[in-house]
Amino acid sequence: MNMLELIDKKKRNNALTEEEIHFMITKYTKDEIPDYQMSSMLMAILINGMNDHETSWLTKAMVDSGDVIDLSSIEGFKVDKHSTGGIGDKVSLLVAPILASLNIPVAKMSGRGLGITGGTVDKLESINGFHVELTTNEFIQQVNEHKIAIVGQSGNLTPADKKLYALRDVTGTVDSIPLIASSIMSKKIASGANGIVLDVKCGKGAFMKDLEHATELATTMISIGENLGRKVAVVITDMNQPLGHNIGNKLEVAEAQEFLSNYKDSERGLFEVTVAISSKMYQLATGVSDEVAEQKIMETLSTGAALDKFKEFITAQGGDATDIYQQNTKHEIVVKALNDGYINSIDAEMIGKASLLIGAGRLTKTDVLDFNAGVKLIKLTGQSVKKGETIAILYSNKDEVEASIQLIEDAYIYTVKEPVKNNSILKVI
Amino acid sequence: MNMLELIDKKKRNNALTEEEIHFMITKYTKDEIPDYQMSSMLMAILINGMNDHETSWLTKAMVDSGDVIDLSSIEGFKVDKHSTGGIGDKVSLLVAPILASLNIPVAKMSGRGLGITGGTVDKLESINGFHVELTTNEFIQQVNEHKIAIVGQSGNLTPADKKLYALRDVTGTVDSIPLIASSIMSKKIASGANGIVLDVKCGKGAFMKDLEHATELATTMISIGENLGRKVAVVITDMNQPLGHNIGNKLEVAEAQEFLSNYKDSERGLFEVTVAISSKMYQLATGVSDEVAEQKIMETLSTGAALDKFKEFITAQGGDATDIYQQNTKHEIVVKALNDGYINSIDAEMIGKASLLIGAGRLTKTDVLDFNAGVKLIKLTGQSVKKGETIAILYSNKDEVEASIQLIEDAYIYTVKEPVKNNSILKVI
Repeated sequence: MNMLELIDKKKRNNALTEEEIHFMITKYTKDEIPDYQMSSMLMAILINGMNDHETSWLTKAMVDSGDVIDLSSIEGFKVDKHSTGGIGDKVSLLVAPILASLNIPVAKMSGRGLGITGGTVDKLESINGFHVELTTNEFIQQVNEHKIAIVGQSGNLTPADKKLYALRDVTGTVDSIPLIASSIMSKKIASGANGIVLDVKCGKGAFMKDLEHATELATTMISIGENLGRKVAVVITDMNQPLGHNIGNKLEVAEAQEFLSNYKDSERGLFEVTVAISSKMYQLATGVSDEVAEQKIMETLSTGAALDKFKEFITAQGGDATDIYQQNTKHEIVVKALNDGYINSIDAEMIGKASLLIGAGRLTKTDVLDFNAGVKLIKLTGQSVKKGETIAILYSNKDEVEASIQLIEDAYIYTVKEPVKNNSILKVI
Repeated sequence: MNMLELIDKKKRNNALTEEEIHFMITKYTKDEIPDYQMSSMLMAILINGMNDHETSWLTKAMVDSGDVIDLSSIEGFKVDKHSTGGIGDKVSLLVAPILASLNIPVAKMSGRGLGITGGTVDKLESINGFHVELTTNEFIQQVNEHKIAIVGQSGNLTPADKKLYALRDVTGTVDSIPLIASSIMSKKIASGANGIVLDVKCGKGAFMKDLEHATELATTMISIGENLGRKVAVVITDMNQPLGHNIGNKLEVAEAQEFLSNYKDSERGLFEVTVAISSKMYQLATGVSDEVAEQKIMETLSTGAALDKFKEFITAQGGDATDIYQQNTKHEIVVKALNDGYINSIDAEMIGKASLLIGAGRLTKTDVLDFNAGVKLIKLTGQSVKKGETIAILYSNKDEVEASIQLIEDAYIYTVKEPVKNNSILKVI
């Protein structure tokens, strides 16, 4: 078996075998297959596709390329969630305490942010004293005691995926459904969960621009789960505006706590997505009906049990829960409406970029984050405003804010007629 | 403009512009685009193809990447030929003196052999004293004086093609018609010819396995010629057995001289291909009809003018024409028929490999050739033999000849019924 034979097979649109995929991933991880051969294979996969078996074998080979976290000493069905990436997406900060407050163990490994998308671990680190590096023993012990822990990735998980992802990024081979699906699923499976709920973002601000492609990605990941013995559910959600009001690390933690304190005043889209994802997670773990699951979620939100769990979790990982609302930056710049009218949409990508420019995100892995920096959207899609009214506030320690202000102004699109309200939940599979 | 945008375009099956192709080839030649990006582009081209404009622009960009030979100081229409590579293919050694004897200037640059296919320049160097390195002035002067010169490639012709070819070889992207066509045509155009006749080999021993693909390659190269102002004709020829009796450098020069001395006794396939190619070359240069061209070729063969020109050419480049028939090796091993019957076919690739193993060809660029080594096929396709009768002679200075003998024996396929004679010329375009 050699790589050229496998490239020939895939370029002629023939399916690869489990053995062939394992060979290719193992050798590539060990630097025994050069990048220029793997990139020609990746392009052949992007154009000709992979069937569900190939995609599952690819996922398994990537899981097998590194460590796999063993969560078997945690009692109960371990359920994880993953989002394909959205601006202002603080749903992980919400569903984790919600599930834990319902006695479902949440043992979550999360990533750091890169580019315009924030990472859950960065957001948690913005809380004074919070530490995200636990030993495996501490991690498991905390979940057994508190039903919840969120830590940074430890160990050498899916090194094949890391290497492949870096190559895809520079060879025009990112937007392939089998490659995206296997990348996401390999990380989640290596992290040890029994069940996974995936939040596939769809729309202008997301990777999947339409429902058809989002559905294809969803069914591919569900099939991988079936083939590799994991329960998987997918919620396809709208990404035509940022999720919630706040974008930026500390701002998002604050919005999460506000949500848990009083969900009735929260932004509608954030509420709908949070309830949909946490219901599905609860359902995977317990097997109850849709109605019962949603009822349970609403109960724990109403009684304040989820909020209590959130505070318990912050404290358990060393964080100062009283610090959360202390937003403190050199500048607080009010951004005003340029027009009268209804807000038709808010470009999520532009808001993400505005926030990135003032230090809320990283451009390269070594950039240092400004936890306090960010954007608070005061006015959201569907609301009517008068020219000159405040639409957003920019929190910045940098003096150069012109580009960010411009981006926020440009992100708001106004119309004369009241726009039709979009549903945040596009599909549940 | 950046390479990732171009990869995206091609992977979505959109055509690239002339500017984009020029950018990509120029940057790649200067090492400003990495191999892993070019290989993903090459795979996208292989699968999605290129239209005739793109292929012509690619050819032009490769021509422009290096030197272009200026033959304008040679009077008359300069016509060149190229073969896609065959075993025992000594047609260049024949058509060059044939054309020159008819007063058509032949200013030919030829390559060296690698693998099982021999190079014209290597074959000529097997003649005692012959030198293939002339300065551009000597080259042009010799053509003006004798109407014929064949030299090795000088200068830095099509460096982009050299770099791309090496990458295609290790990334599974060789068998793409636009890439093959542009590679061949760029070299011929950079060599300065006004007209080019292409011998596209077709069959088991060739790159193009069937007439459909051979025709597609042919029409692509003709279209490149049209777009870049060169007259191009294609002869598609059968490669289901080696061409002629002799395989090996000195053996092939000897067969060429025998052919010119007495074409009537030559192997039929070699005769047909030589007449077809040289007629087409004569036609491109003069514009006469098929019949007139073929008549002219037969005339110069019959009168001995072509043979005289061959000897004049050898002498002009310092070669000793009396040395040609001096075949001298340590071993001359007779290979015998393993069966009674008609010879149905002779596997050209196996004969090429037999010859390579005893030093008649190079495995790597630095291997030193044994000019005297080679194979003479005594019995050819269509002939009947008795078991034990001599079918071939192996000329070797190496003592290890077992593998070569085995290959020759295995190359001969026998049948009880007399096989139908294949036509050597499959199509002329």
